Amino acid sequence: MERLYNRKYNELRLVSITPNYIQYPEGSVLIEMGNTKVICNATVEEKVPHFKKNTGEGWVTAEYDMLPRATAIRNTRDIHRLKQNNRAVEIQRLIGRSLRSVMDFKALGERSITLDCDVIQADGGTRTASITGAFVALHLACQKLLKQNIITTMPIQSFVAAVSVGVVEGESLLDLCYQEDSQADVDMNLVMNEQGEYIEIQGTAEQVPFSRQQLNQLLQLGEKGIGELIQIQKSILGE
Amino acid sequence: MERLYNRKYNELRLVSITPNYIQYPEGSVLIEMGNTKVICNATVEEKVPHFKKNTGEGWVTAEYDMLPRATAIRNTRDIHRLKQNNRAVEIQRLIGRSLRSVMDFKALGERSITLDCDVIQADGGTRTASITGAFVALHLACQKLLKQNIITTMPIQSFVAAVSVGVVEGESLLDLCYQEDSQADVDMNLVMNEQGEYIEIQGTAEQVPFSRQQLNQLLQLGEKGIGELIQIQKSILGE
Amino acid sequence: MERLYNRKYNELRLVSITPNYIQYPEGSVLIEMGNTKVICNATVEEKVPHFKKNTGEGWVTAEYDMLPRATAIRNTRDIHRLKQNNRAVEIQRLIGRSLRSVMDFKALGERSITLDCDVIQADGGTRTASITGAFVALHLACQKLLKQNIITTMPIQSFVAAVSVGVVEGESLLDLCYQEDSQADVDMNLVMNEQGEYIEIQGTAEQVPFSRQQLNQLLQLGEKGIGELIQIQKSILGE
Amino acid sequence: MERLYNRKYNELRLVSITPNYIQYPEGSVLIEMGNTKVICNATVEEKVPHFKKNTGEGWVTAEYDMLPRATAIRNTRDIHRLKQNNRAVEIQRLIGRSLRSVMDFKALGERSITLDCDVIQADGGTRTASITGAFVALHLACQKLLKQNIITTMPIQSFVAAVSVGVVEGESLLDLCYQEDSQADVDMNLVMNEQGEYIEIQGTAEQVPFSRQQLNQLLQLGEKGIGELIQIQKSILGE
Amino acid sequence: MERLYNRKYNELRLVSITPNYIQYPEGSVLIEMGNTKVICNATVEEKVPHFKKNTGEGWVTAEYDMLPRATAIRNTRDIHRLKQNNRAVEIQRLIGRSLRSVMDFKALGERSITLDCDVIQADGGTRTASITGAFVALHLACQKLLKQNIITTMPIQSFVAAVSVGVVEGESLLDLCYQEDSQADVDMNLVMNEQGEYIEIQGTAEQVPFSRQQLNQLLQLGEKGIGELIQIQKSILGE
Amino acid sequence: MERLYNRKYNELRLVSITPNYIQYPEGSVLIEMGNTKVICNATVEEKVPHFKKNTGEGWVTAEYDMLPRATAIRNTRDIHRLKQNNRAVEIQRLIGRSLRSVMDFKALGERSITLDCDVIQADGGTRTASITGAFVALHLACQKLLKQNIITTMPIQSFVAAVSVGVVEGESLLDLCYQEDSQADVDMNLVMNEQGEYIEIQGTAEQVPFSRQQLNQLLQLGEKGIGELIQIQKSILGE
Repeated sequence: MERLYNRKYNELRLVSITPNYIQYPEGSVLIEMGNTKVICNATVEEKVPHFKKNTGEGWVTAEYDMLPRATAIRNTRDIHRLKQNNRAVEIQRLIGRSLRSVMDFKALGERSITLDCDVIQADGGTRTASITGAFVALHLACQKLLKQNIITTMPIQSFVAAVSVGVVEGESLLDLCYQEDSQADVDMNLVMNEQGEYIEIQGTAEQVPFSRQQLNQLLQLGEKGIGELIQIQKSILGE
Repeated sequence: MERLYNRKYNELRLVSITPNYIQYPEGSVLIEMGNTKVICNATVEEKVPHFKKNTGEGWVTAEYDMLPRATAIRNTRDIHRLKQNNRAVEIQRLIGRSLRSVMDFKALGERSITLDCDVIQADGGTRTASITGAFVALHLACQKLLKQNIITTMPIQSFVAAVSVGVVEGESLLDLCYQEDSQADVDMNLVMNEQGEYIEIQGTAEQVPFSRQQLNQLLQLGEKGIGELIQIQKSILGE
Repeated sequence: MERLYNRKYNELRLVSITPNYIQYPEGSVLIEMGNTKVICNATVEEKVPHFKKNTGEGWVTAEYDMLPRATAIRNTRDIHRLKQNNRAVEIQRLIGRSLRSVMDFKALGERSITLDCDVIQADGGTRTASITGAFVALHLACQKLLKQNIITTMPIQSFVAAVSVGVVEGESLLDLCYQEDSQADVDMNLVMNEQGEYIEIQGTAEQVPFSRQQLNQLLQLGEKGIGELIQIQKSILGE
Repeated sequence: MERLYNRKYNELRLVSITPNYIQYPEGSVLIEMGNTKVICNATVEEKVPHFKKNTGEGWVTAEYDMLPRATAIRNTRDIHRLKQNNRAVEIQRLIGRSLRSVMDFKALGERSITLDCDVIQADGGTRTASITGAFVALHLACQKLLKQNIITTMPIQSFVAAVSVGVVEGESLLDLCYQEDSQADVDMNLVMNEQGEYIEIQGTAEQVPFSRQQLNQLLQLGEKGIGELIQIQKSILGE
Repeated sequence: MERLYNRKYNELRLVSITPNYIQYPEGSVLIEMGNTKVICNATVEEKVPHFKKNTGEGWVTAEYDMLPRATAIRNTRDIHRLKQNNRAVEIQRLIGRSLRSVMDFKALGERSITLDCDVIQADGGTRTASITGAFVALHLACQKLLKQNIITTMPIQSFVAAVSVGVVEGESLLDLCYQEDSQADVDMNLVMNEQGEYIEIQGTAEQVPFSRQQLNQLLQLGEKGIGELIQIQKSILGE
Repeated sequence: MERLYNRKYNELRLVSITPNYIQYPEGSVLIEMGNTKVICNATVEEKVPHFKKNTGEGWVTAEYDMLPRATAIRNTRDIHRLKQNNRAVEIQRLIGRSLRSVMDFKALGERSITLDCDVIQADGGTRTASITGAFVALHLACQKLLKQNIITTMPIQSFVAAVSVGVVEGESLLDLCYQEDSQADVDMNLVMNEQGEYIEIQGTAEQVPFSRQQLNQLLQLGEKGIGELIQIQKSILGE
């Protein structure tokens, strides 16, 4: 199967992470994976949700949205339907869980960091790009807290990145663009840490159920892609 | 590790599926997995969502909710917060995708079936119990359509069931109750068909990331449990 | 006029009250009046609405809802219209007022009890069944508070039950099922205490206005039915 | 018991109905019962709710609201809580049912009349004043339809008016003002037609249950008051 | 161009301000400008928005709404669309800003005054009538606070009134009624103080852009009209 | 008074307009005025609002929003308050009116163009930047319609741009940044066409009322700035 831009089955799209993209947030990046572009902003606030009050521990949460015209067809803004998009709800829960899995909340102290992931242009893989980009924004925000002596220990315990994999016309592919994703039989999102361990696996048989063997191929591809993404994150963050 | 009621690590809780539980729906069951109790009602309507209009194809969708006091602490009803519970949104999307994966929508014709999964008592595993029970309600509704000659071919192409597995204190367990779930390091929901193929895998490292080896153990347990659940579904449905 | 199941004009449907139906609530019953089935759960919370703060007095309130397929036609859930059903608003206000009328709020102390009445199958008379069932759930919850020495005096001062009566084809009938209710000229809901006094009278001429004489007949029937319901409540509660 | 303004126990407050109060509606009155003031506007629209489509029949419905400062304490507008006031929901359902009970919907034809009852100053009895005033606005609107030859038969089959009665300090009183209402043991709203038949009875024991004898006294008082109100309606409408 | 009622191009409609119109508010007027009628109620509350807490300063805010049948066509109430009317949002922000511009918030002390402007009949110029009327209600409320010794200095530093001007068929006109407004090429709302200074200018070219010369003519007309309105306000307030 | 970056009182900030910024919309620009950055996307849809149906005429409308962290303090997303930000409502109405003022809706035909203005970084003047940028996006979209022969005449009749002016410490300034805006006594937004005529004037005395003379100075400054902005628009659009 021929992929756009002559990509190989196990090749990521062009990845670009621009740090300090917006001037106000404590951490901010623009992440681009091919034509998918997401602004990830980290906001530090000196308050925690009620279930963390007086625990000495902090919290990390995420919000995910798209500009109305990030896609080929214009989407109505949530506020005009008075209802958050169901897909966005599912995605932001995934982003939040993924980032929380590497946090030491004692080290963060009783404050919260919100990661706003706003897709300005969507071409497949927006949720995994959001995780990869939001991790960098989160790291920048934590570095800032360290530099300002607000915290004394880096609360991030491991790098985290995410990528999508899938089965298209019987072939397992890494990092699907929208065109590939829309014809995929199986669609899987993987979140892993720098030790190559799993944080999240979300695999869905959109059309055709998948076997254990296919699962293994997809996990293999994902491991490769996430390894490369973590290298890019490290080079941006100077680690 | 000692489990409640002397369960073995690879043993399901007591499963009970009561067919025709409510009198009005086209398909209705009460499913009980241990103390988890879910009413699953299937409603057939002669209309389809806009994206299926004039395609000759039908649709299957699901809604998931809990009674306020299905849990130890009373939950506020969604309507009083004017917002559907985020967790419920995620779950009902999973139920819908799982059931759609085995449907022949041409055979169903241009009509829709809604599966209402209302948890009246929750003790862990409500989303997987909902899938297992909703499948039976869906099957009952399709049988009724066949018997009434509204459709001529059974639109269900395979049985589907779901189960949760997880890692608690380092041990892989099948079918977690709430107490086990709340201390699990890894929580995974598996949806499979009767051929032993995967429909959905959703694994989350709540506390500790998991390795490929642990993943394999969990998949093994899930396969066993789902096989047993499909036997129970078949006996209820007389297949 | 022939009634279903050969009921006489002044005869209740089969009544069944299952105590401790759900395991978590402080009080819980399933009440069945013929094919009408309502789960009534009582939740005790150590907080009161703002107008009761620092008064030393408690509060009792009710919520009423139906599963989408409790009826022949599926109802959309409130949350998808972002508006509580108007009929449910009216009913839950009636349930709350009825139960509060027999409460000694000083004896309850500064805590609140919420009665969730969720109709799982509707065949007429759901609001009166809810009152009769919720009273038992409330009583169970108060007994529990007494047993746990959280309160020292039973705050319930009298039994309360409710029944519907109506005029169908010119005949006054007790405890209308849905089929009777839908053709009634007059529809009346009565709430009374064990002394045979009135707590609420809500009579509506749906089609034909009614005379004082008809009113008197309906009150007579209601008194008989409520007397029998209170006997059933007492036998369940061991009084 | 001394009443304000030396009213007798069976005496209405000063009643004033100003027809054609607002210039745009098809029917409009300002009704004043003592210090209670309600603007009642009738709007005729050439459309009906879906359940009346293609039946040749019309519909009548009502909406009830208060200006924020119609009361001693300012009320937040519904829109800022995104929820219609529960009490208003209950009241507008009562107004609608009461007016529909005297309508010949065939004679009205497939059109609807909406009665907007907006309380600009509240001093007790706003729901019954709304019914009494809305009836006049409805009558004015029907007269206009007749005069314009849009309909050929008066669709109103009887006059309707409403009044509140109650028990205060053991005494049965007609037409309670706010001060009396707030100390009432029993509060009852009566809606009757010009034949002295009942359309609605809504009696509530706020503090103390009531006996059949008290009920009879209250019905007596209400009959007297409603008779007088219907005389006033007739003189305004020139009948 | 002939105006209705033989008005000259620079002539206000008949203005009437009825003080103490509703009995409960701290300040209340009915303002009529021709057929436009607005009830303006001022409510004093001993609380301030969060951004004024512990500043020793108060706040003034406004809300604007219309009865559904204040206009020729009935408007749906905001609550049924779950969204405040956009035009009302814009108008109430203008009213609030205009009144705040003359307030000494230190003199008011840490309390807030809310001006509810409810249009009961609309014939053009409702936003400017609301400002002119709300100013009087605000003044009445402040006088009451002074008389009750709750404050010691009048917090209102200048009179404020507002008027609309516009260009219709090439001619500049003062105080447009609805018929004129609906055919205007330019529509402008002016808010000025008693020194003839500007508080707000909001000019919109609905159809045809306007020149500096036209702007000057409109400002001239507005200055004349506002001067007359402030005289009327002063006579009502006895200043 | 010293301005940031040594700006003169009558000098615009650095302006940059990047055309075709997002790939999907029919017209798209990123406009930067100093540190204020707004993505303006134009969407053409083959439908019109109900009041334009069957008129042969089109419509232009605008929506305005900010990313949560476009500002120093994070803003909650509208959907979580279930209410569109009041300021955004006011602004998007202004953008829509301004752009509609130069449209020939017959030439556009029965289709609509929506301008989404999403502020990604805010440093004052976001509403005027949105108008200036949205005009370019609108122009690009119309050019595309022309090129595709969907329309035959350019429906835009004049260029439009907007700028803010204000009085800070007694001095009239052009194009205020956030710091200047927050201390301004008078704040004015001007929208003008290429003939130097006014489309909108919105002036507000935030602290101190303004005289006719100050108004004239502000209009002068605005005219200069808008003239320069229209030159930039023309160079981008190749006119």
